[in-house]
Amino acid sequence: MDFTIQKVLILTDTGYRTVDIRIEGDAIAHIAPDLEARGTIVNGANKLLLPGFINAHTHSSEMWQRGLISPYPLELWLTQLYDCPVINLEQIYLSALGTAAETLLSGGTCVVDHLVLIPGKELETVEATIRGYREIGIRAFIGPLIYDRALDAGIPDEGANREIEPFYWTAEQNLNFLQAAIEKFHRPEEGIGIMTAPTGMQLCSDALFKGCIELSDRYNLCRHTHLLETKAQEKLAWEKYGCTAVAYLDRIGFLSDRTSLAHCVWLNDEDISLLAKTRSTVVHNPLSNLRLGSGIAPVLKYRQAGVNVAFGCDGTASSDGQDMLEAIKIGTMLHNTTDFEYRNWIDPKKAVKMAALGGATGIKLADKIGSLEVGKKADLVLYDLTNLSLLPRTDPVGLLIFGRPTRVVDSVWVNGDRIVAEGKPTRIDIEKLRQDLFQYSDWTGDTKSSTTQKMEAHYRHVMGLPGS
Amino acid sequence: MDFTIQKVLILTDTGYRTVDIRIEGDAIAHIAPDLEARGTIVNGANKLLLPGFINAHTHSSEMWQRGLISPYPLELWLTQLYDCPVINLEQIYLSALGTAAETLLSGGTCVVDHLVLIPGKELETVEATIRGYREIGIRAFIGPLIYDRALDAGIPDEGANREIEPFYWTAEQNLNFLQAAIEKFHRPEEGIGIMTAPTGMQLCSDALFKGCIELSDRYNLCRHTHLLETKAQEKLAWEKYGCTAVAYLDRIGFLSDRTSLAHCVWLNDEDISLLAKTRSTVVHNPLSNLRLGSGIAPVLKYRQAGVNVAFGCDGTASSDGQDMLEAIKIGTMLHNTTDFEYRNWIDPKKAVKMAALGGATGIKLADKIGSLEVGKKADLVLYDLTNLSLLPRTDPVGLLIFGRPTRVVDSVWVNGDRIVAEGKPTRIDIEKLRQDLFQYSDWTGDTKSSTTQKMEAHYRHVMGLPGS
Repeated sequence: MDFTIQKVLILTDTGYRTVDIRIEGDAIAHIAPDLEARGTIVNGANKLLLPGFINAHTHSSEMWQRGLISPYPLELWLTQLYDCPVINLEQIYLSALGTAAETLLSGGTCVVDHLVLIPGKELETVEATIRGYREIGIRAFIGPLIYDRALDAGIPDEGANREIEPFYWTAEQNLNFLQAAIEKFHRPEEGIGIMTAPTGMQLCSDALFKGCIELSDRYNLCRHTHLLETKAQEKLAWEKYGCTAVAYLDRIGFLSDRTSLAHCVWLNDEDISLLAKTRSTVVHNPLSNLRLGSGIAPVLKYRQAGVNVAFGCDGTASSDGQDMLEAIKIGTMLHNTTDFEYRNWIDPKKAVKMAALGGATGIKLADKIGSLEVGKKADLVLYDLTNLSLLPRTDPVGLLIFGRPTRVVDSVWVNGDRIVAEGKPTRIDIEKLRQDLFQYSDWTGDTKSSTTQKMEAHYRHVMGLPGS
Repeated sequence: MDFTIQKVLILTDTGYRTVDIRIEGDAIAHIAPDLEARGTIVNGANKLLLPGFINAHTHSSEMWQRGLISPYPLELWLTQLYDCPVINLEQIYLSALGTAAETLLSGGTCVVDHLVLIPGKELETVEATIRGYREIGIRAFIGPLIYDRALDAGIPDEGANREIEPFYWTAEQNLNFLQAAIEKFHRPEEGIGIMTAPTGMQLCSDALFKGCIELSDRYNLCRHTHLLETKAQEKLAWEKYGCTAVAYLDRIGFLSDRTSLAHCVWLNDEDISLLAKTRSTVVHNPLSNLRLGSGIAPVLKYRQAGVNVAFGCDGTASSDGQDMLEAIKIGTMLHNTTDFEYRNWIDPKKAVKMAALGGATGIKLADKIGSLEVGKKADLVLYDLTNLSLLPRTDPVGLLIFGRPTRVVDSVWVNGDRIVAEGKPTRIDIEKLRQDLFQYSDWTGDTKSSTTQKMEAHYRHVMGLPGS
């Protein structure tokens, strides 16, 4: 349906401009002051319009463990996560809705869901997730989280000669499932895409990585994986491949301009050059990196090397929410502590570009979304600048990115459809979602994980920590 | 007025407990399950009650520069701040209201305001601020921000032999003003206290520090100052005193169990021992430290050395808000990146204790507020655990501290008075505040500061950055 947003503030390369924007069908048709109105009129006065952000890495079903897991490094945190899995397809659907709602209400219009699968119900997990995303109307890429090694294999051995139990699915079984998921669900023209997304080198065989590359080439899909999130993974890569994990991924041909890599905390300068050369995208998940003590990703170095950087929230069990504005704020400011040269620091306007166009580039959609340009899809977010949390009035984007905005999103459009209006999703009943999330859960204290106990001593040995 | 909160969840040393809490007058009278109700009944079902947090360092009038200043290190950021001063007493009053409102609605019940003064209207600035705090009902400590050296003096000279212009107020003039402010406004029994708060060693003479110590002893006041926020200040202390700034403050007797020190980023191990020995409090302002690139304060070391640590938001021009839950979240997780020994990491329950009791200790009120104990003042915050941002249900304090809570505060009491109910301040019109903040401001882009231009070349020289 055509519509015109009148007298709205937009960001330009040099500052701000007040314009009218006319959307025809699913795309931006005109941007200019005082356009002839057509279709529905939207009053843009005292509002800011930005391109939608891409929540470029998350795991939707982790919403069920929000705030639950104690402070642990990734490897032990994972053992806790695995001991409280989501086993219910209704929950999968609800957490997809919840993840989408939080993303939309914090400026995102697209989510990259590295989706944890229910064993034995893999296709159904993807289906339930997509049902949620289609219902609320968000653009979504789903990368079913596949692997073929048991959890212990993700920790370096360091001469302990541990016996790692075989995993219940082989590379071939994973790839058969993935191909079925692609054929059944990959509908990019409808805003739902499948990615090939092996968990990471820590839990995946060569055969699985190569099969993913082959499928992504055959179906023209994006690739996604976790990369060097922790110091332990850096060690593991050397143990496994005799080189860095980036050199390994480059050697097998996984890196490309449609490859996005979550975390990238422990890369050296040569690794960074490889990412730049292959035009791969780094997805920075600052909140998760802090919570799990993974480290501070060298984001300023990435930018200086010309590596594209996007922002993600990561799963809610490690972040512990899906607020894109929070992830962007911390992912912007955090790096100021890593470089005294303040001229390298990221300012709020650059952060917006990273979160929108950087995110779009990472999913090979920079020609279609990520900026306000005539011809691009109307994935738009309208912010209410009269909200108390954005006052007093100063620099609108400074307020939005550096501040603590609270319920500032007025409207969201994806593909020209208004899926949030007056701060509420239009297609789902958010009050019912709230009640459902309440009903399907209860207050529990700290988790006691037998898997943690099993793995902790070895983890401490590998990380050079004193015996327990 | 007496009241009873029924069936509310509280935090204990070992977990959670559901209790009734009876408040008589301004204090907690009983805590037990199924108490006989007295006075007003407050339904605590599906709610969590915590002691109020202390926003242990802020500058209220900086609210007028929220989101405004570009990413700069402290010394250059300050030049920008000084070029857009607040000169209007009505604005001073409004930003006190705004600072208090954001603090209250994020779990705080007390604010420590290191208050920037309008030159020539110093007492009036304090008066307008206190008017705001009294009106909304928050507990407040005001430390008028005094100094007797010009801004340039805050940057090390490093042999440049700069001429520093004399400052318009001498130590004596500052101290005369401070004494007048103490006599006029210090009313701790009414919830309004004055602190002696020299800006910091970078802009204060020996005479000013010593006069502040003398006044704090005479009137039994708390002491507060900025301490070693930046690497440049670390250098400056050696240039000025031939020792660290902490050794200097210890030598002159400023450190004590009623001294709180904002930032404390650049301390060495001996400095830390001095803070522990003198029982001084560190106020950690993580958001400001990130935004200004000051560094990561060694908070885990402070805790291991037995130094009391509290949380502050710092002024809104560098944070860029007054959300205590945001400051606590980042100030908790940030340190996980500084120590692979995850057993040293701060968990959400410890963070609550730091923010409440740690904050109270820093203002020498640990015997009166900061925990839920019979006999203590009723400075209480009631959180609605059915809020969408705190769902699904898991661990309530984990959700609150690690999550992204949005409008979760139901009620706040200070001294037993309910000053927030159903998420809104009861004594002020928050909608009028919003309109006033809008009216007194306009959207401006980036500031161009002549002071920055004047000081930048020298700053870059001192910090070893390449010439501009």
